[in-house]
This record gives sequence, structure tokens and C-alpha cells, in this order.
Amino acid sequence: MAAARKNSPYELFYWPGIPGRGEYVRLALEEAGAPYVDVARERDTGMEEMMALMEGEGTKHLSFAPPFLRDGRILVGQVAAILLYLGPRLGLTPKAEAGALWTHQIQLTITDLVAEAHDVHHPISVGLYYEDQKKEAARRADDFRGQRIPKFLDWFELVMEANGATKEKPHLVGKSLTYADLSLFHTVDGLKFAFPKTTGRLMKNRPLVSSLHASVKKRPKIAAYMKSDRRQPFSDGIFRHYPELDK
Amino acid sequence: MAAARKNSPYELFYWPGIPGRGEYVRLALEEAGAPYVDVARERDTGMEEMMALMEGEGTKHLSFAPPFLRDGRILVGQVAAILLYLGPRLGLTPKAEAGALWTHQIQLTITDLVAEAHDVHHPISVGLYYEDQKKEAARRADDFRGQRIPKFLDWFELVMEANGATKEKPHLVGKSLTYADLSLFHTVDGLKFAFPKTTGRLMKNRPLVSSLHASVKKRPKIAAYMKSDRRQPFSDGIFRHYPELDK
Repeated sequence: MAAARKNSPYELFYWPGIPGRGEYVRLALEEAGAPYVDVARERDTGMEEMMALMEGEGTKHLSFAPPFLRDGRILVGQVAAILLYLGPRLGLTPKAEAGALWTHQIQLTITDLVAEAHDVHHPISVGLYYEDQKKEAARRADDFRGQRIPKFLDWFELVMEANGATKEKPHLVGKSLTYADLSLFHTVDGLKFAFPKTTGRLMKNRPLVSSLHASVKKRPKIAAYMKSDRRQPFSDGIFRHYPELDK
Repeated sequence: MAAARKNSPYELFYWPGIPGRGEYVRLALEEAGAPYVDVARERDTGMEEMMALMEGEGTKHLSFAPPFLRDGRILVGQVAAILLYLGPRLGLTPKAEAGALWTHQIQLTITDLVAEAHDVHHPISVGLYYEDQKKEAARRADDFRGQRIPKFLDWFELVMEANGATKEKPHLVGKSLTYADLSLFHTVDGLKFAFPKTTGRLMKNRPLVSSLHASVKKRPKIAAYMKSDRRQPFSDGIFRHYPELDK
């Protein structure tokens, strides 16, 4: 499916400085070659525009938190809802309802994993520093590494198996790329950054998920994006590398 | 909008014994008067059927966890995806794309709040008992009561204000009931059960959310459902009342 031609660029609103949850939207836009502005990074007044939309004065569809996307009169927040909106426009989701719904369901399960990956270093409060919840983080990390990452990765592997995925066609849904593939790629990438030992070990026994990760990374538009300065490296966002939390 | 007439009942799969996440789906089905079977509760072989679908043998669209819903050839999991599917069929979401997407975005924000409400009593691991993470739960509860519940409730109140909601028409989206209203009703209900002191105090200054809660509770089909034995009381599910976590 080809991306629809579009005159005015999509506007993505997200905190500058980290890939964060905004990255799931960026990857879809980049893969589709869709025109977009990363407002808070690229416009001089970007942060002010974002804060104004967040403070709610005159914002009809106020988001609880970034990222959110503006497309003309549409303003939509929550990563999974943004991708639900963009999917058909970017040719990154099946056209039939059942396939589109299934792609969305997978995305929502990725959303759950992403929230858990964040909560490992912030098990008590997003308002406190990691240093103020290190003891609790160590306990939660044990569980996340030992129970949760394997359980999620097993599910993605099963989903790919049930889809008849192969090394050559490593997709979660159908025989072509969807936004769920891009999102799983980035999530595995984040886990590799945050928990290199654990993830390296676990990926050895998840051949289909490993193939998906390797294959998305090599896609021409994704590879070019990863080398560009539009891509921000992992640091202190959702996926964080604290050596003491990995084993 | 009237619910579509339907011959074969929807099949809802969820753990028996608690309202849990299944309740968000039940409330939509009940309000619409849609025929459904709560499989694990109502069928002798219900638990076996649910486990078979979860274990994946021959399940094409395997869910990560209950609830999931079967409607003929459609099998869909994740509460927000189930409601996205049911919404137009039950007349519980706007017909235009922008309104349907906005309703879904609100539902996803409710999903986030529900996950946080659960993690208050399980901040370390879902695999451990509350008793094994009481100390951490006490710290997390302080933050949830002091920061998170007010922040979420403020957002719902703002959303209702921006929608022009009133005491007589206390809706999140448009001028009639959507599944997001039902979900917010149940979430407030759960918070009242789990954190009666905190929630009682906070609701005094959120008149629109309070009106929504009172108004949904009085809807004839919801009121009849709440009195029926199809409704399971709150206990040790997502919303749990531990007096030491409320202040």
C-alpha cells in the first residue's frame, strides 16, 4: 500500500531530547515517507505551541500527555490512537476491519509492555528521581527481567508463528509491514538498550521476533532515519540503562 | 442511537469472581441491552473454553490476557479495542471518525488510570501477594492519592467542561452517552471502593465527573444490572480496599 499524497505536513507534538513515546509515531511517519514537523524540536515557538495545546485554553480535544498529533482539524493523543488514525493513511495497517482491529490490539499490548518498562525505574512515582526509588526498582527489575519480558516476548513470538511469519517475511500481521511491526522493533531496541544482558539472552530463543527486529532496522527509510539527526538516542526516557538493574 | 438487532449473543471471556477489566465490556453490553454470555461464569465448560483460547492452539488472534470478546469470526482482546469494536454496534460512540477517535482516546486514558490503580497494591510484581509488597505499596499509594488521582480527575473534568457538559447532560463526548462515560463511571466507582476517603474528598471539587457518576448509576439498565446477580462486587481485583492505603 502506498502512502497517500499529502500537502500539509502532520504536526507531531512531543518532548524534545528523548525518543520516548513519540518515537512510535515518528517511525510510522518515517517509514511511510510522510511529511511531518516534530514541532517542539523544529519550530522556534514549538514548545510554547505544545504547552498551549496542553494547558487546554481553547483546546477541544485536550490530551492527558504528549505525544499528540495534529492533522488539520484533527488533534489526537495516545500513541495507539494516533497509530489507529495514521495506519490507513500511511498504508501501515490492513484495510479490512478484522485485520486493522488485530493490529491495534497488538499495539495496545506493546503499550502495556512500554508502561511496564518505564515503571521498572519508577515503581513508586514518576514525580521522584530514580535515586529516590532505587531499592524498589531493584525488586521490580528482578520481576520484569525474570517474568514479564519473557512473557511478552513469548506472546509476540506466538503471534508471529500463528501468522505464518518466516525469517523472510517476519511480520506480526499478514504478509506486509504494519505499524505494529515498527512498534515492536522499537520496543525490542529499547529493551536491548536498557537490559542488554537479559534481552540478548532472551532473543536467542525468539527467532521470529529477532528476525523482525533485524529486518525493520534494515529497511531503507528506517536505516536512513536512524542515521539522521531527526533520531534522538536513548537516554533517560522510557528505556533507561542502569547496569544494576540488568543481569 | 439504538443497538443493532442481533441473533447470536456476544461471548465475553473473563475471569469469574471479580468485576475486573471485564466490567468495562459488561457495562457497555448491559446498557445497550445486547445479548451476551459471560462464558466463564455461565457455561459449564466456560473456563475450559477460555483457557483453550488463551493457550493458543489454533487461536489465530490470541489475546495476551482476558478479557476478550468473540462475535462470530471476530475474536478481540484488550478492553479499549473491544469497546472500539462494540461502540458503533451498540450505539455507544459517535458515528463520525473524529468523535469516535476522541472517545477512544479518552478510553485509553482511563486504561492508564486503571493500570495505575492496580499497581498501587502491586507496585513490584503481579506474581507476589500484596503482603509481600506492602511497604512499597504504602509509598506508591501516597503518590497515587496525592498526585495521580487528582491529575486524572482534573483532566476528565476539563474534558467535560470543554464538551459543554452540564449536570443534566454530564457527558465526556457530545450530548449523549458513550462507552467512555460508562468506563469513567465504573472507574470512579472503583476508586470510591478502594480509596473512599480520598475519592470522597476529591469528588467534591469535580462537579461534572460527580454528575456523570450519579447519572450513569441511575440509568435504568445499569441500575437493574447492578442489582442483578450478573454484577459481581468489588473485592480483590483491580480496585482493592486496604484501609492503610487510604487517608
